Amino acid sequence: MTKAAAPMGRLYGVGLGPGDPDLVTVKAVKILGAAPVVAYFAHKGRRGHARAIVDRWLGPQCLELPLYYPMTTEIAFSDPIYVEALRAFYAEATATIADHLCAGRDVALTCEGDPLLYGSFMHLYVRLKDRFAIEVIPGVAGMSGCWSAAQVPIAWGDDVLSVLPGTLGGGDLARRIEACDAAIIIKLGANLGKVRLAIREAGRETEAIYVEHGTQASEKILKLTEKTDDHAPYFSMILIPGQGRRP
Amino acid sequence: MTKAAAPMGRLYGVGLGPGDPDLVTVKAVKILGAAPVVAYFAHKGRRGHARAIVDRWLGPQCLELPLYYPMTTEIAFSDPIYVEALRAFYAEATATIADHLCAGRDVALTCEGDPLLYGSFMHLYVRLKDRFAIEVIPGVAGMSGCWSAAQVPIAWGDDVLSVLPGTLGGGDLARRIEACDAAIIIKLGANLGKVRLAIREAGRETEAIYVEHGTQASEKILKLTEKTDDHAPYFSMILIPGQGRRP
Repeated sequence: MTKAAAPMGRLYGVGLGPGDPDLVTVKAVKILGAAPVVAYFAHKGRRGHARAIVDRWLGPQCLELPLYYPMTTEIAFSDPIYVEALRAFYAEATATIADHLCAGRDVALTCEGDPLLYGSFMHLYVRLKDRFAIEVIPGVAGMSGCWSAAQVPIAWGDDVLSVLPGTLGGGDLARRIEACDAAIIIKLGANLGKVRLAIREAGRETEAIYVEHGTQASEKILKLTEKTDDHAPYFSMILIPGQGRRP
Repeated sequence: MTKAAAPMGRLYGVGLGPGDPDLVTVKAVKILGAAPVVAYFAHKGRRGHARAIVDRWLGPQCLELPLYYPMTTEIAFSDPIYVEALRAFYAEATATIADHLCAGRDVALTCEGDPLLYGSFMHLYVRLKDRFAIEVIPGVAGMSGCWSAAQVPIAWGDDVLSVLPGTLGGGDLARRIEACDAAIIIKLGANLGKVRLAIREAGRETEAIYVEHGTQASEKILKLTEKTDDHAPYFSMILIPGQGRRP
């Protein structure tokens, strides 16, 4: 089979940005308005953030293709049942999208934030890239939305910036926070208590900013020291700004 | 003086994305089209990337305010003459923008990539934030543009991602590359030879991708092992993708 043969559809991986529909790029708007099929990830029984963001940008003839995750993020990622369910889900989503592409229909597969930065899009990309023509449209990362909403200049001059998943062990996290100038701790959820201790151990607690639902109506921004509970959505994050060169 | 008093203009820090004018956000387009003053950084005698990106988005009545850097990036950042010249430049740019804001004119201060991620905007932001109402519009980061153009999924699952300036020492760079799962080495320029050795020392040379002018007409993407010379623009970068969890 030749790659991108004439009658095949084209797959677009479309970054949707951090949540505000106006933080979608002009290029994404053009593709969303023209694509015969628009796919988005969601949790079963919910509309999902991606669908909410694209609402005003969908063309009138567009076929919507929701891709429902088999379960929530509350199950351990290492659980073999979770891994198997996720693998089956990605395989099925891949097959559905491939059918549309083979029938000559372009598919816009949307992704919150930036598609190639911790994005679900990547799991379908690796399964489809050898068979179909793919174009990736970068988006404003969720973390950019958060530090802009909080007005926190995150990295200056020669600052080393690290993105650290809150799923890491507490000691490892503390050492990594100490070793960099600026840090973004993502995937908080049930990890917030552990993350808070690691930041304290690294001596950075007073600088840390907690951001929840950045750029959305429900946005919350506060100093970590002012957040008195340890409840946090999985996609909330903590920003520790760098202090580098500033003439 | 009260912050954001009625007759004052508002300052917008507008992210312009990685280079392709269609990778500007809808929000940025609205602000650029309506702002009475649009400011942009450039090197003396050149039009500059920012001006090229906004070209199609400027309103007909817009006053353009170019801010010319006093010198090029070829002088050492630590040179006191450079630091002093830059400080004077930022002070003058701040005064010019403040004059417009005091006269009641909104100013869109543009910034390539994302304004709060290693952006020149930050140097004016800290000088203006206590006197004026400011809104920051995040943009697609230059690095997002690069990994999207190269179709390199940069970070997966629990990957630790580090952004490392090529200005760091070679040994330090090598240790930091070894310590993370995914790395982006920015600010290459004259540092490319040293960076290449550090990546080799960390055992990651075969995975590394070199990207120059990502998303622009002059874009170049190649494996680092296939880049045979050590000439690189200052804003080129190297991507080392993570290999994290992928069911």
